[in-house]
Amino acid sequence: MRMKIGIDAMGGDFAPLNVVKGAIDAYNCLQQNTKLVLFGDEESIIKICNENNFAANNFEIINTTEVIGMDDHPAKAFSQKSNSSITVGFEYLAKKQIDGIASAGSTGAMMVGAVYTVKFIEGIMRPCISSNAPLLNGGTAVIADVGLNVDCKPDNLLQYALLGSIYAKEILGYENPRIGLVNVGEEAEKGSLLTKAAYELMEADGRFNFIGNVEGHELFTGEKADVIICDGFTGNIILKQAESNYRLAKKLNIQNDFFDRFNYELYGGTPVLGANAPIIIGHGASTPLAIKNMILQAESVIRVNLIDKIKKSLSIKKNG
Amino acid sequence: MRMKIGIDAMGGDFAPLNVVKGAIDAYNCLQQNTKLVLFGDEESIIKICNENNFAANNFEIINTTEVIGMDDHPAKAFSQKSNSSITVGFEYLAKKQIDGIASAGSTGAMMVGAVYTVKFIEGIMRPCISSNAPLLNGGTAVIADVGLNVDCKPDNLLQYALLGSIYAKEILGYENPRIGLVNVGEEAEKGSLLTKAAYELMEADGRFNFIGNVEGHELFTGEKADVIICDGFTGNIILKQAESNYRLAKKLNIQNDFFDRFNYELYGGTPVLGANAPIIIGHGASTPLAIKNMILQAESVIRVNLIDKIKKSLSIKKNG
Repeated sequence: MRMKIGIDAMGGDFAPLNVVKGAIDAYNCLQQNTKLVLFGDEESIIKICNENNFAANNFEIINTTEVIGMDDHPAKAFSQKSNSSITVGFEYLAKKQIDGIASAGSTGAMMVGAVYTVKFIEGIMRPCISSNAPLLNGGTAVIADVGLNVDCKPDNLLQYALLGSIYAKEILGYENPRIGLVNVGEEAEKGSLLTKAAYELMEADGRFNFIGNVEGHELFTGEKADVIICDGFTGNIILKQAESNYRLAKKLNIQNDFFDRFNYELYGGTPVLGANAPIIIGHGASTPLAIKNMILQAESVIRVNLIDKIKKSLSIKKNG
Repeated sequence: MRMKIGIDAMGGDFAPLNVVKGAIDAYNCLQQNTKLVLFGDEESIIKICNENNFAANNFEIINTTEVIGMDDHPAKAFSQKSNSSITVGFEYLAKKQIDGIASAGSTGAMMVGAVYTVKFIEGIMRPCISSNAPLLNGGTAVIADVGLNVDCKPDNLLQYALLGSIYAKEILGYENPRIGLVNVGEEAEKGSLLTKAAYELMEADGRFNFIGNVEGHELFTGEKADVIICDGFTGNIILKQAESNYRLAKKLNIQNDFFDRFNYELYGGTPVLGANAPIIIGHGASTPLAIKNMILQAESVIRVNLIDKIKKSLSIKKNG
């Protein structure tokens, strides 16, 4: 399958250095017909390639002159910095000159880019971002939302369950992923106004394998759920707390494979689930390893045609 | 200081056995003039004392014939099971025949007991429960709320900050505890509708040392905050996720003092902050060690006269 993955070479705290290095590392892992298109300052990109003994013409480089910073107002910056790597990248995406876009830069600007250009999949109220995390049973969990929508409605959580289920099937290879709702108790009637209402919707839906509530101590055991659904506030706290296990273990000189798997660099990036094109968001502090994995993640999302799979699932009637 | 601590001998998944054993273990650690008053089935209590070669008359035993179970409706059970250990215990508390009450039983029934008898401290909208947790800097953190109020308003979080600050000062000995708000970003303008509004209130208050937002990976480093404020939904997830670190470490054969300190048994119980009398709630699955620490916690709360300290702090004007 031929594909072109757009990379925001200027996105992230250590851009363009870490992005270009990560793209170089990813290059040898990609399928033969996958091409990387780097948006950013051409001179810097070529210089980093040269310093790493890598032929810059392995990449397609689109020279851009502006950068949207983390402090910029996303909507204003997206419009006003019309020659920024993100804005130009989304123009290419909208024209299908690239098949997806990945950035470790401003999540806000990426979302504005989605809304202004490729839009959301029909029927999706608000997209979400997911993260992978290790399960003690050896599997990999999906957590969604991990921060895109911090004030969720029950309907949002229902859609995240559906999106997470499709992601777990298509990207992680689960046959019938178990979907759990993060909550403060096991019983259906436990929880906040949000989770109680979401529970009812999720239980009645029928398009995914809802197993009920999952409590804080059950998130990573794998005994209950493969996909962990919550609002973006809760998911952001859970994810950062979980990732800190890895750093804690390192600090405390604990060598353990399970704790090592909480290293975000292994997962690299998360697709915006519900956007109408492959849009992958990476960690602001991405290392080259994280960027490499973000790019490989983008390749998977495009290869399995995740967007079409989501559209198809959304068109299935509830309980149908 | 003379005091009588009421213990719900029938509360918890392994009551009365674990409760009586825990009370026996606590007995030798209490100050000379502290007396334990056990509410529950006298015959069982005496039997357990005998089996443990402990003179039952070291306790004051108030025989009760009913038990409020975890599945009982709290308000109905509190009224209808008028000879239950919790109901009778609260009668004693209301009449000041005991100075505080501790239970690992139904949190709901304990809260009903508070509302029906001793009430909340004037000005407190909703009380909270806190939990201690280890900090990597060697200190101890306070997290509040950890589950009493899952649907918080910004004013609730403001009061929890004040209550948590007093608790950290009086019980943990912090001189000027640093109060952090759990949030998804560092900046004041980040967060959910709830946390953005709470941030403004907390920053303007002036009665405690507000240091701003604390993210999920910063909760237990001790670099930012000593007291971690959040709604009860978030706090419950954080606490259970943190406690599972201890169990994970055990399962993975990791021996580490820091992870060991996430063992809830070390903290035992949490006072209901904002109730108008010392009310201590323990973990349903309490072991004897957890019960012992719950009782010692109750003794501390009574000894430092936490309730009066809270009343005094509430009477200080904001920014005064």
